[in-house]
Amino acid sequence: MEFEPVGVVHSPYKEKKDAPIQPRFSDTEGEIEIFEEFADGLKDIDGFSHIWVLFEFHRSEGFDLHVRPYLDDELRGVFACRTPRRPNPIGMSLVRLVGRSGNILKISGLDMLNGSPVLDIKPYVNTFDEEEDVRIGWLEGKAQQGKGKKGG
Amino acid sequence: MEFEPVGVVHSPYKEKKDAPIQPRFSDTEGEIEIFEEFADGLKDIDGFSHIWVLFEFHRSEGFDLHVRPYLDDELRGVFACRTPRRPNPIGMSLVRLVGRSGNILKISGLDMLNGSPVLDIKPYVNTFDEEEDVRIGWLEGKAQQGKGKKGG
Repeated sequence: MEFEPVGVVHSPYKEKKDAPIQPRFSDTEGEIEIFEEFADGLKDIDGFSHIWVLFEFHRSEGFDLHVRPYLDDELRGVFACRTPRRPNPIGMSLVRLVGRSGNILKISGLDMLNGSPVLDIKPYVNTFDEEEDVRIGWLEGKAQQGKGKKGG
Repeated sequence: MEFEPVGVVHSPYKEKKDAPIQPRFSDTEGEIEIFEEFADGLKDIDGFSHIWVLFEFHRSEGFDLHVRPYLDDELRGVFACRTPRRPNPIGMSLVRLVGRSGNILKISGLDMLNGSPVLDIKPYVNTFDEEEDVRIGWLEGKAQQGKGKKGG
């Protein structure tokens, strides 16, 4: 199946090594430019404090089914990790929507690389997107370790 | 950009009118079949109670930049809605992982249509995927209304 970008990320992160491992651990600000032809689709987005950004990991090449994630020493299945090197290199970032100026979304908590093609924007709705009784497998006790750290 | 499915959804929902508007409001069980060539990527997934499924809204045709969502009477921007009719028809479902048998993931809280092509599986990590001080715009006071209801 084929998809076309609806926008592009403007980020201070030019290289993979500069980006944080998860946006949750970043206060970095940047912009999402939605191309003019799709800009009308941003109506009402301003009411939401947070948005999901679906984007292409455009600097990612190839993938392995088993990967050694940043937060662990063991090989883990690619579908049990958030690594950019995936069979379909689609990223999903939850960011804070700081403001909008026409077709430009000002965001914070950004981890995307500059120039990342944007596939979709969806509103974050906590009644849909939060779960209880969550187990996080190999990330248990590790998910906080990434705080403030950088790296792929 | 071009993506290839890594699997397929087996769901009791054969038609759009049968599916709930959000998986959060569903106890429906089903399966995700990950194709054999990608099955090794499921290692360690069992430790996670919930997973994100990225999939194609394969029955969705075209899109409008302004849509009248199920939960509202006004026209809203497509990027402020979760409607399947999007510029890039990519869906994102948060489901409970009930079990795994080889390349088959047994899930509950399913809202996807039968035959939906699966693009990616990512673990749900509450320390990454939950936010505080959330505002949900036009969905305020409405997001719970969909509970138990059906429809596009």
